[in-house]
Amino acid sequence: MILSSLVFENDELKILDQTLLPQKIEYKTITNIDQAIEAIKSLRIRGAPAIGVMAALSIYVEQKRLVENRQIQSLEEFYNELNINLKKISQSRPTAVNLFYAIERIRGEVLSIAWNDLTEALKELKKVALSIFEEDKELCEKIGFWGSQLVFDGAKILTHCNTGSLATAGKGTALGVIYTAVEQNKKIFVYNTETRPLLQGSRLTSFELQYAKIPNMLITDNMVASLFANKEIDMVLVGADRIARNGDTANKIGTLGIAILSQYFSVPFYVVAPSTSIDTSIPDGSHIPIEFRRPDEVRNFRDCISSPPDVEVYNPAFDITPSHLITGIITEMGIFRYPYQF
Amino acid sequence: MILSSLVFENDELKILDQTLLPQKIEYKTITNIDQAIEAIKSLRIRGAPAIGVMAALSIYVEQKRLVENRQIQSLEEFYNELNINLKKISQSRPTAVNLFYAIERIRGEVLSIAWNDLTEALKELKKVALSIFEEDKELCEKIGFWGSQLVFDGAKILTHCNTGSLATAGKGTALGVIYTAVEQNKKIFVYNTETRPLLQGSRLTSFELQYAKIPNMLITDNMVASLFANKEIDMVLVGADRIARNGDTANKIGTLGIAILSQYFSVPFYVVAPSTSIDTSIPDGSHIPIEFRRPDEVRNFRDCISSPPDVEVYNPAFDITPSHLITGIITEMGIFRYPYQF
Repeated sequence: MILSSLVFENDELKILDQTLLPQKIEYKTITNIDQAIEAIKSLRIRGAPAIGVMAALSIYVEQKRLVENRQIQSLEEFYNELNINLKKISQSRPTAVNLFYAIERIRGEVLSIAWNDLTEALKELKKVALSIFEEDKELCEKIGFWGSQLVFDGAKILTHCNTGSLATAGKGTALGVIYTAVEQNKKIFVYNTETRPLLQGSRLTSFELQYAKIPNMLITDNMVASLFANKEIDMVLVGADRIARNGDTANKIGTLGIAILSQYFSVPFYVVAPSTSIDTSIPDGSHIPIEFRRPDEVRNFRDCISSPPDVEVYNPAFDITPSHLITGIITEMGIFRYPYQF
Repeated sequence: MILSSLVFENDELKILDQTLLPQKIEYKTITNIDQAIEAIKSLRIRGAPAIGVMAALSIYVEQKRLVENRQIQSLEEFYNELNINLKKISQSRPTAVNLFYAIERIRGEVLSIAWNDLTEALKELKKVALSIFEEDKELCEKIGFWGSQLVFDGAKILTHCNTGSLATAGKGTALGVIYTAVEQNKKIFVYNTETRPLLQGSRLTSFELQYAKIPNMLITDNMVASLFANKEIDMVLVGADRIARNGDTANKIGTLGIAILSQYFSVPFYVVAPSTSIDTSIPDGSHIPIEFRRPDEVRNFRDCISSPPDVEVYNPAFDITPSHLITGIITEMGIFRYPYQF
């Protein structure tokens, strides 16, 4: 019923190329680190949890390749290359913290330990990568369990961007809550924004919801207030790319606007994320780096031109929602309420 | 310095085909009423004031054509056809009230008067249509005069959709205020939304601002809150398709959301429109009919497919901003402040 964003079988890593959706379902094999970084940067794979899992698995694939090609012949070379590759992939996208969580796990559980030989080091690296992969699936299940407690039968839910099986290794975060509620036989209606500029909502979320046969309706990003004014929305569920210690949340551009509208119309606004999205090293949202992307993403969509070619563009990929606008943060550990202290 | 949305010369009506912008500047001759209605419905010409002017001029063009083709041979036939054509064009778009203003002018000043002969009736019809045309230009000038009083040197202004020379017969409403402020040598920076689904912002406003050499930056509709949060916006100027007696305003979908964000961030939010956009026959916004448009406008981005082909879509072309969110309504008569009593 759900489509996997990444598949790892027989030591082979494949990702669903999300830039081709919804027209084409095509998996792409990732054979080295450069392909992995390209796939993350170009959003062939995206979603904070999925990026973290992808980073871990692709680091393993790359280290194994180097060992097999005899470009790594000693443990020292293994550690050196691992260090280089972790650094390389850490620069692929700055905002989502799950990437850094995966990197830290590998640093702590592989790079900082003295293994006996290359085979053992590689085996342990695979173990850590697979555990990040499996844990993410498990996190989605638990998040779905907690979040679905809040969803009443007949609820009309607004979501933004894509937070489903395409954004994680499992069933998703915000969309995972919806999947779980539907599994509980609750009748749910989903409104989803298209999420300009890269249209993760219309390309991916509409696609996932149709795939899962959940009734849904697509809107452009500027129709949210109109839906609220017509009392069409009972609750809002969105994901997170990074959550600060006080609950301030970086998420896909447009989230802040939806949070303010939710407050204005007195509709509960929930952030849904695994605890791996919480960055306890920063006190508040002002410390979260925001990625700015290419102007052409706003000037065009794919090959369709929508503006004068050289028009100046503002293109932040994320915005920061202050914690006081967030009714609750749904994690695998349960639901936290404002004020947050992670 | 500005590009005209419509040109009327030697009894020939030409409109700039706005569906081709920004790639192509092409004027299209309108020779009969069906072409005029098609042009309005397909948004080759749009913008509440421009639609009103277009309606008046095309009614004249059609009546003259029928007289010349001897399909109208008597005054009785002239009145009959005029009645039919006014009804036909009144059904082209339901929300903008300027269309109905133009129709009422022709009803009152041509249809309800006993002319001596066809030549005289046609001459009077032309006079009324031209006066609506000329008045709209004049309205823009006066609106610009009043509105520019509010614009300080160095202001960063957010606008939505297109309200410039492409939306009126003159220099525009909200954009007209900006043009006037620039003529007064004020240094202005304009942020404009792309305005999904039909991209009047990126296709038309970015184009107009570049044409007028006014510094500007394009954003997607969901980036407004991020700009506000970064204190990038000093004031908001938007147009109106219809204003009720109490000041509730129908305007391009997305306006309500921007108004709520403006209130949240304490930024003044102004509606800019000629008094011909005020509909004193209705007490409040709940009486304004909202046009819903084709799902494919949301499913696609121009010719690029952005969602599963049969996904359900919500596509209102307008929303209603309650008057208490509007700091002021700038008209040719001056600037009105809340509470409004038109």
